[in-house]
Amino acid sequence: MKVDGKPFRSIWLEPDGFSVSAIDQRRLPHEFVVVEIPTAEAAADAIRTMLVRGAPLIGATAAYGMALAMRDDRSDSNLDRAYEMLVKSRPTAINLRWALDEMMRVLRPLPPSSRVPAAYARATEIAEEDVAINREIGKNGLALIEKIAASKKPGEAVNVLTHCNAGWLATVDWGTATSPIYQAHDRGIPVHVWVDETRPRNQGASLTAWELGHHGVPHTVIADNTGGHLMQHRMVDLAIVGTDRVAANGDVCNKIGTYLKALAAHDNCVPFYVALPSPTIDFRINDGIAEIPIEQREASEVTEMTGRTSDGRIETVRVVPAGSPAANYAFDVTPARLVTGLITERGVLGANRAALASAFPERAASH
Amino acid sequence: MKVDGKPFRSIWLEPDGFSVSAIDQRRLPHEFVVVEIPTAEAAADAIRTMLVRGAPLIGATAAYGMALAMRDDRSDSNLDRAYEMLVKSRPTAINLRWALDEMMRVLRPLPPSSRVPAAYARATEIAEEDVAINREIGKNGLALIEKIAASKKPGEAVNVLTHCNAGWLATVDWGTATSPIYQAHDRGIPVHVWVDETRPRNQGASLTAWELGHHGVPHTVIADNTGGHLMQHRMVDLAIVGTDRVAANGDVCNKIGTYLKALAAHDNCVPFYVALPSPTIDFRINDGIAEIPIEQREASEVTEMTGRTSDGRIETVRVVPAGSPAANYAFDVTPARLVTGLITERGVLGANRAALASAFPERAASH
Repeated sequence: MKVDGKPFRSIWLEPDGFSVSAIDQRRLPHEFVVVEIPTAEAAADAIRTMLVRGAPLIGATAAYGMALAMRDDRSDSNLDRAYEMLVKSRPTAINLRWALDEMMRVLRPLPPSSRVPAAYARATEIAEEDVAINREIGKNGLALIEKIAASKKPGEAVNVLTHCNAGWLATVDWGTATSPIYQAHDRGIPVHVWVDETRPRNQGASLTAWELGHHGVPHTVIADNTGGHLMQHRMVDLAIVGTDRVAANGDVCNKIGTYLKALAAHDNCVPFYVALPSPTIDFRINDGIAEIPIEQREASEVTEMTGRTSDGRIETVRVVPAGSPAANYAFDVTPARLVTGLITERGVLGANRAALASAFPERAASH
Repeated sequence: MKVDGKPFRSIWLEPDGFSVSAIDQRRLPHEFVVVEIPTAEAAADAIRTMLVRGAPLIGATAAYGMALAMRDDRSDSNLDRAYEMLVKSRPTAINLRWALDEMMRVLRPLPPSSRVPAAYARATEIAEEDVAINREIGKNGLALIEKIAASKKPGEAVNVLTHCNAGWLATVDWGTATSPIYQAHDRGIPVHVWVDETRPRNQGASLTAWELGHHGVPHTVIADNTGGHLMQHRMVDLAIVGTDRVAANGDVCNKIGTYLKALAAHDNCVPFYVALPSPTIDFRINDGIAEIPIEQREASEVTEMTGRTSDGRIETVRVVPAGSPAANYAFDVTPARLVTGLITERGVLGANRAALASAFPERAASH
């Protein structure tokens, strides 16, 4: 999508054909900084420190990380070493493992001398596949928005609530949850987005608001506590969120707090959709709530907040009393029963085992 | 309760018998500052700017505001002027109107010459009544905690989740939601409190964590998004929150986000209690969701955050991109069907019209 009129992706290969660059998402929304990722170690660090984040972007970054590793040392042992290092960089995103497994599938059988170009080719394909998938997700989700728009008065906006950032910054381009929104907006359908601030880390306030604003999509930032009230008062037409991992039974693991919004949507008959590229589906997991491990992150993400002062300095402030501990569960699991539908590149599916297996038989069959 | 070993209330009459002082809650948790409230105008400002907040404390402050007004000018016209000014200082808290009506009931029939001592006497009574009511709420809620504690292994803590600050800082003393917690803790029952950060304004992180910490109650601050996950994994034994207004049908108006926690509690069979002094019941309101007006506050409470830097400065930082608007709905209404019980000074009641009317017939009858 666009930043100040110029098309950008969240990660890209430079014209030299081997350098990888990405937007440093930790600096947004106050500073727009592009960072070079020169090695596999740097790729793992970028994932771990959340310079890049979002399940599909993590996958693409890991794939490029494998290519960078091969450029450095094409041996079997380095292939294994890079895989192990990268797979541990974040625990939740299934795309991470999926992308690394893909790279292994391609690279392992090749003689070391062929691995560098093959690695770059497959990593670039993974990135391009993500863009193509998200474009399809957008088309499928667009139909849902168009249907609601048809029931509105002329000029009246469709109100979409989203949580966290499942925007183009979380993917290579388009985003997942935002792709239907961007496509509707680009076609002139009036859309307004309620952007959950998304504590801790504030990815909604700092990333989703930033990218919607730069693309010109009307939006309003709200505290995470607000969505229930808005739904109760018919101020939300539909909710669309992303996901880091969908279990075979349709349970949805996403940023902490997603479950609360799904409960509110259910209680108020507001459709609650989850947009996802199929690599996010983990057919090995039969019960999302029982089986998906929930990452716990640093307490400082809860106790501290970073932003810009009125005179332009970037400062980090503590908002919790000295001595008070904090817990930081990064994700929760929304039971499938609360999900109206899964917006995938192959259509809008029911959040259940049969629908997922039927739409993606080639993936389901292997489990 | 105690601050650094010294007993404090949130508002008090100084030994001179007419000066009113309060803790400036906008400065917590980083600075403990006591402020004098010299006039009715200052009392209204203190309420409006949230130097004092919490429904019972707002009521006590307004009552003292009327006493300060009388000290300044005992005339009928000033009585009316002070009432009008104070009643507009916050829109949601029913205690505000209740306390002001009480003051009017006492003062209006009196000759101006008798109004000053009568005003101070009734305001002090209102403050003392709040303390007594909260002590009773604590006793009634304590029984609920004791029952859960009895089912635990020795030494295992009862986990209570609370939202916002319905602590002693929100009342004159004891708090409402915290009163059972303080009483359990003081009796040696192991209690651990999950403290919702409570965006915007962060009253959980800045006030509830502060007062629990100063009283020595184990607690952990969490993002507002976290409670659903904790309940899903049996890490919450019960939720206790406060309220700004309870409708005659048992609908509960409280800080925005309360509704989401009630939904999660209901979905996971976690008891969800609301602690309230009976002046918080508004028998004029028959349907809380349809009839209670929801205050909208400054967007800056969402877009900006104030805290302490690592080198000790208090800074305010913007956490939303320049140009992104924000909405700030301060309260939501939790439907009575999601409330396990109302902890009042007259016992734990069902959240319904019959139970409220039967426990408080003298108040219900007048509507």
